[in-house]
Amino acid sequence: MKKYLAEMVGTMVLVLMGCGSAVFNGGCGTPAQVLMVAMAFGFSVIAMAYTIGGISGCHINPAITLGCMLSGRMKSKEGLMYMLFQVAGALIGSSIIALLTSNIDMAYATTTGANSCASGVGVIGGFIAEVVFTFVFVLVVLGTTDPKKGAGNFAGLAIGISLVLVHICCIPITGTSVNPARSIAPALFAGGEALSQLWIFILAPFIGAFLSSCVWKLICDHK
Amino acid sequence: MKKYLAEMVGTMVLVLMGCGSAVFNGGCGTPAQVLMVAMAFGFSVIAMAYTIGGISGCHINPAITLGCMLSGRMKSKEGLMYMLFQVAGALIGSSIIALLTSNIDMAYATTTGANSCASGVGVIGGFIAEVVFTFVFVLVVLGTTDPKKGAGNFAGLAIGISLVLVHICCIPITGTSVNPARSIAPALFAGGEALSQLWIFILAPFIGAFLSSCVWKLICDHK
Amino acid sequence: MKKYLAEMVGTMVLVLMGCGSAVFNGGCGTPAQVLMVAMAFGFSVIAMAYTIGGISGCHINPAITLGCMLSGRMKSKEGLMYMLFQVAGALIGSSIIALLTSNIDMAYATTTGANSCASGVGVIGGFIAEVVFTFVFVLVVLGTTDPKKGAGNFAGLAIGISLVLVHICCIPITGTSVNPARSIAPALFAGGEALSQLWIFILAPFIGAFLSSCVWKLICDHK
Amino acid sequence: MKKYLAEMVGTMVLVLMGCGSAVFNGGCGTPAQVLMVAMAFGFSVIAMAYTIGGISGCHINPAITLGCMLSGRMKSKEGLMYMLFQVAGALIGSSIIALLTSNIDMAYATTTGANSCASGVGVIGGFIAEVVFTFVFVLVVLGTTDPKKGAGNFAGLAIGISLVLVHICCIPITGTSVNPARSIAPALFAGGEALSQLWIFILAPFIGAFLSSCVWKLICDHK
Repeated sequence: MKKYLAEMVGTMVLVLMGCGSAVFNGGCGTPAQVLMVAMAFGFSVIAMAYTIGGISGCHINPAITLGCMLSGRMKSKEGLMYMLFQVAGALIGSSIIALLTSNIDMAYATTTGANSCASGVGVIGGFIAEVVFTFVFVLVVLGTTDPKKGAGNFAGLAIGISLVLVHICCIPITGTSVNPARSIAPALFAGGEALSQLWIFILAPFIGAFLSSCVWKLICDHK
Repeated sequence: MKKYLAEMVGTMVLVLMGCGSAVFNGGCGTPAQVLMVAMAFGFSVIAMAYTIGGISGCHINPAITLGCMLSGRMKSKEGLMYMLFQVAGALIGSSIIALLTSNIDMAYATTTGANSCASGVGVIGGFIAEVVFTFVFVLVVLGTTDPKKGAGNFAGLAIGISLVLVHICCIPITGTSVNPARSIAPALFAGGEALSQLWIFILAPFIGAFLSSCVWKLICDHK
Repeated sequence: MKKYLAEMVGTMVLVLMGCGSAVFNGGCGTPAQVLMVAMAFGFSVIAMAYTIGGISGCHINPAITLGCMLSGRMKSKEGLMYMLFQVAGALIGSSIIALLTSNIDMAYATTTGANSCASGVGVIGGFIAEVVFTFVFVLVVLGTTDPKKGAGNFAGLAIGISLVLVHICCIPITGTSVNPARSIAPALFAGGEALSQLWIFILAPFIGAFLSSCVWKLICDHK
Repeated sequence: MKKYLAEMVGTMVLVLMGCGSAVFNGGCGTPAQVLMVAMAFGFSVIAMAYTIGGISGCHINPAITLGCMLSGRMKSKEGLMYMLFQVAGALIGSSIIALLTSNIDMAYATTTGANSCASGVGVIGGFIAEVVFTFVFVLVVLGTTDPKKGAGNFAGLAIGISLVLVHICCIPITGTSVNPARSIAPALFAGGEALSQLWIFILAPFIGAFLSSCVWKLICDHK
């Protein structure tokens, strides 16, 4: 039970700080904002990896949990419980952002940090982007946490840095999900396009994670 | 006595470099400035964690000291001495900033880097923000320095990175305290609103640290 | 064979994320963009170093592979296979960028992140810059991965950070190659000046790597 | 002899990349430029610390060498040789920048990255700033490399991050020296005010380093 609570708290922090960085700094319209929000998401993962990593492994992302299940590192039932608590944590994170914005009288007081395809980016472009960038992210997760070929204590740092990287590339396209829990919660608060496109940010990250587990099997032979 | 002096020097560096980064770069009005000042506070913690960590544990923040006391890692008397020397160090840090600005004839020569609620942010909004973000920060401190589940030598890095993160989100709201010592010293130099709102930046971080110690007990079972 | 595939995947990620960061964020015309793209290239190396480092050593750059061959750490035949798979991976990376931009209707939809000498930078200036900055980068690689004097697990972090550094200095001059594979693939997609200047970004990095191996022999005596 | 050559190469890289980052990106007039140049100096130290740290200890700064001498970690004669080779390396670094700018026809082609007091900052203000910020920097060096209380392999990272920090605060005041070698070489190329104010950037860092060695003795008792 402790590990499920840890996943809930970790995902809460990821959504609160990642989405919050965009909400409280007025979005991602300039390169400096893109960089800042990218860092906020990646640094949330570094912070949580070294805080709850020893308790739950710090997935805080259903796509990572799926990748671990497909790589045979985790049982299905436990994985589904992880996902459930991750979504619950994300909802708490979005609720805290809503609590803060409702007590602040500023321009950003109505935004949520939800994902949606940018103007000029169609559903297909956004979908491919989310598959591709989740593939890169989950590949780093599977590689750095591999029990034999992995990065040991450096894994948390490398994974967080790779999430900064993924956000730098993908924020201009979809805002960057690569994490269904991170998209579900803000979409429920935002409604509209964020809700109607939510399926992209659930399905595409899972496909990306599936591809990662295939490629990692290919390049890493434990025998 | 050595450890109290270490806390004093460490908090002096935090206030000098963190508040100084805002003072000498003209505040936090743009995203690039927010990112720069956020890095300055977090990097001060990384620098000091690996410099005085072996001597005092490098709290340099009364909210962290309270969190350690509530988690049973530190005796009350020693904790109060830590807080006293932290405030003394912060005062020295603010004095050095004042010494520098009094010898420089530029626009920033009258600012102090003090905390106050931004325009549009009421006392309630600022108070909630400081509770929430101190909770996140002290949770990382308690988790990464946990004797059994912690991050070992990576703790200093993870804590500093999480302070960058907290500043990215909270600078637009209150300038970010999450540390009573960091707020007391500049407020005494700035006066006005910084002084009249000072209670927020003392009380709210302590409440946030209390919540962290509760949640950490919940998710980390040492038995 | 596993290690060749790892080099292919790693170089694919480097080109996809490094060049992609420039493509999707509208180029490198402002300091914030330079910093962001510099981070994307360096963070790709950090991500891959800790993902495939245990499999292939994570060169993902023919200039590094040459440096390792000249330092007697690698046989010629294996090195040439590394280079071949690195170029193949780079081509896949550029293809994915092309796939993404072809599905996105935005201003950046025709760029590739290819290298070329900036306006005002002649062929000679660009050539010297690539020699100099590759020398610095490969020197860090040879030093940090030295079996006796090296940096152990910190090597991946130090190498990635040095690639951020090299990009900060060299983006305004040539866009920064220091890696023939990273230049070949986008040039084939871009054509024009990128293709006619491609020889610079193949020859100069190799000369820089040769100089690194000489200087490293000079300052590091294993006897 | 190897270690002297290592110091020469390391200081060459520091000046080439640190000063070069300012030269090739058009100076430090905006916050994004300040952040970028601050990172370039700090990242040069991280890169070199893990490259030549095992050979010479990677001082690449006469103020650090003085701090080590005053702390009894190094003999005077060896220290003076370190300083000599550091200045030689800095001169090579500045020469390479001059070689590059002479082959590039752009606005920055005449700058050198030399230190001088900013407009509105008098000699006294600049002097105090250099003393204060060198004190902070060398304190981190002495603390993190302390044989008993130090940070082990994390020292190079912490020292580099603290140099980023020092530059964020001090670039708007003097451009940031905290390193006599880093100031001597560009001043010889720049002449004018950089040369007439050079004494500040030699004397003040040495005073700061002296203060660091005193404070470190005070807070660290090896008995």
